[in-house]
Amino acid sequence: MRIVDLIEKKKKGSTLSKKEINFLINSLMDGSAPDYQLSAWLMAVYFQGLTEEETAYLTEAMIASGEIIDFGELTDSIVDKHSTGGVGDKVTITLIPLLAAAGVPIAKLSGRGLGHTGGTIDKLESIPGFNTQLCINELIEQVKKINVAIGAQTQNLTPADGKLYALRDVTATVDSMPLIASSVVSKKIASGAKNIILDVKYGSGAFMKTAEDAIELSKLMVNIGKLLNKSITAVITSMEEPLGRAIGNSLEIIESIEFLKGNIKKGDLAELTYSFATIALMQIGLYNDKSEAEAYLKELVSSGKAIEKFKELIIAQNGNPEVIDNYDLFDLPTYKIECESKKNGYVHNIDAYKIAYACKILGAGRDKKSDPIDYSVGIYLNKKSGDNVNKGDILYTIYSNNPEKTMLAQKYCDEAFVINENRPYHNSLIYKIIRASEDDDV
Amino acid sequence: MRIVDLIEKKKKGSTLSKKEINFLINSLMDGSAPDYQLSAWLMAVYFQGLTEEETAYLTEAMIASGEIIDFGELTDSIVDKHSTGGVGDKVTITLIPLLAAAGVPIAKLSGRGLGHTGGTIDKLESIPGFNTQLCINELIEQVKKINVAIGAQTQNLTPADGKLYALRDVTATVDSMPLIASSVVSKKIASGAKNIILDVKYGSGAFMKTAEDAIELSKLMVNIGKLLNKSITAVITSMEEPLGRAIGNSLEIIESIEFLKGNIKKGDLAELTYSFATIALMQIGLYNDKSEAEAYLKELVSSGKAIEKFKELIIAQNGNPEVIDNYDLFDLPTYKIECESKKNGYVHNIDAYKIAYACKILGAGRDKKSDPIDYSVGIYLNKKSGDNVNKGDILYTIYSNNPEKTMLAQKYCDEAFVINENRPYHNSLIYKIIRASEDDDV
Repeated sequence: MRIVDLIEKKKKGSTLSKKEINFLINSLMDGSAPDYQLSAWLMAVYFQGLTEEETAYLTEAMIASGEIIDFGELTDSIVDKHSTGGVGDKVTITLIPLLAAAGVPIAKLSGRGLGHTGGTIDKLESIPGFNTQLCINELIEQVKKINVAIGAQTQNLTPADGKLYALRDVTATVDSMPLIASSVVSKKIASGAKNIILDVKYGSGAFMKTAEDAIELSKLMVNIGKLLNKSITAVITSMEEPLGRAIGNSLEIIESIEFLKGNIKKGDLAELTYSFATIALMQIGLYNDKSEAEAYLKELVSSGKAIEKFKELIIAQNGNPEVIDNYDLFDLPTYKIECESKKNGYVHNIDAYKIAYACKILGAGRDKKSDPIDYSVGIYLNKKSGDNVNKGDILYTIYSNNPEKTMLAQKYCDEAFVINENRPYHNSLIYKIIRASEDDDV
Repeated sequence: MRIVDLIEKKKKGSTLSKKEINFLINSLMDGSAPDYQLSAWLMAVYFQGLTEEETAYLTEAMIASGEIIDFGELTDSIVDKHSTGGVGDKVTITLIPLLAAAGVPIAKLSGRGLGHTGGTIDKLESIPGFNTQLCINELIEQVKKINVAIGAQTQNLTPADGKLYALRDVTATVDSMPLIASSVVSKKIASGAKNIILDVKYGSGAFMKTAEDAIELSKLMVNIGKLLNKSITAVITSMEEPLGRAIGNSLEIIESIEFLKGNIKKGDLAELTYSFATIALMQIGLYNDKSEAEAYLKELVSSGKAIEKFKELIIAQNGNPEVIDNYDLFDLPTYKIECESKKNGYVHNIDAYKIAYACKILGAGRDKKSDPIDYSVGIYLNKKSGDNVNKGDILYTIYSNNPEKTMLAQKYCDEAFVINENRPYHNSLIYKIIRASEDDDV
């Protein structure tokens, strides 16, 4: 078998066999396939696509390239969740203690922030002492003990995906549905869960710009899951404005704590957290009725069991649990600037990308993996879409350590807020749920 | 400017500017663009194509990457000829002494054989002593002195094309019209001629399998020529069966000598040689009338001036001119096997590719650049398409140095000959001539 023939075959639109795709990935791993051949193949895939079977073969080959986490008898009940990335998205942080409190074992490997999206690992590390460097055995043991563990992604899982992604990043071949799908699904399957919930975001602040693209990607991922004997549910959610009110590392942890304490009962963060948790309870068969599941979850929050589980998680991973009751224990910024609305009307939209950009200016994000980040800074949205505002009302608050950066961030935030006279119409947050068995419109 | 953005742009079907294409080729040459980015760009070009302007920019950038031959005051009258490669194609060897005898300065840089196509340089080196390693100054001086010179292609011309071609070869991106066109035209323009005649072959033995593809490629090359102020004529010719009767290095030189001596007056070799020479005389304005030009050329052959010029060329390049009168001075093979027809009928076709393959088995060709070749071996076609044959007539003759290889070659030759009862219909050898000013059907 020769790589050049596999490039030619894909270029002409033919389907590759499992053997051929394994050969490609094995050649990538043993170094016998030069990068210039792989990148030509990736570009041919961009144009000709991959069938669901080919995508599943690619996914399997990438899984087989590295370690696979084995949770033993827990495998069938364990749940994993993944988001394709949004602004202010702290649903992993609210969801995992809630599910663990409900008796669902949950193990999660998360990434760091890059570009305009934040990373769950960075956010958690804003809790003084919190350790995210768990080895695979520590992760497994902690899940067995307290039902929940969260660690930073390790290079040992799906190294082929890591290599391929690095190549895609510099050859303009990131935006290919089968390549995105196999990358996401291979990482999730190698992480050991049988039940996977994917939050597929679309909109200005997301990688998928339209709902149609998000649906296509979701169906593909759910179907690969079926082919590989995993239960995947994809929830297609809107990412037009930031999720919740806080954007920035410790600010998002504080908002998550507020939710888990029961102080945030409405709004997008509560809606998504309860929806995902309900889907998880039903997917693993703990509940058949949606409203019963949701009532149970709300009870876990109001009774304090959810925040108690988060405390357990912080303690298990060496963090300081006192932050839950004393937010002053987080890194605090020097300045807190409340910014007012310049006109009367309704908030129609808050551009997620611009808010994220403002946060990055403040120091909450990074451009390169090696850049340091400032946990303390960020933006709090005092008003959200649909809210009525009067001139002089506080629209948002900037948390900053640098006056110049503050001014620049303020410029982007002002641009982000779209305020008009008439009352806005809003699409629902959850656009569609795609399950292995059926499609549900919401 | 970043290469990844230029890949993205081409991937999305946008047009690149001259500055952007120069940046790509400069980055290729100074090593700042890694191969994996260039190969992704090449694959994007395969799918999205290049406009004529982009192709011209690419051609110019590749020309500028190396030396450019300058013939000074001869530039406007000098003629160059290129064939896209066929089996038994010795038209360069017959054409250049003929044109030089007609007073047309002609300089030619040729390649060696690879795969199933022979190379003019290998063929000429079958003449004992013939030196094809001319440096550029020697080439220019010889043309000024005797009107004609032929040398092996040098790495100093269009090195960017050489690098790009090496990458295309291993990434399945050879068969892209704009990439083929810019490769051919850049080499020709860097070789210094203003007047270029391109023999674009189509058929089973050619790179372009259909006349339509050959027309597309030809128009593109002619139009790039226009954009770059060169006069290019493309002659689209059929390559269904080998050209002439001899295939193999010294056999083809002998056939060329026979033509130049006036002993081959009819058939495809004579037709193409006279056609190209006529086009050249008219293109540089020596003649306006086709039949007058052709009569003049035939007179040059019958009067002995053409073969005399070939002798001058051989002497100028240190070859032994006595081969012209004594073919025994060529390397001679051990065996000469005459193979008979097994049935009565008409020759409908002689598959060029199979004959070429048989020659390669005998040792006349090579798979890798470093493989040695045997000048003495080859195949002579005693019958050509359209000929009536009886069982027992000699169809072809194998010249060989190895009985086992002979048997294998014979198998392929027998397969190559298609003999049927009815009289065959044949398309004309020249399908179309495409000039910068007009298209001529022939």
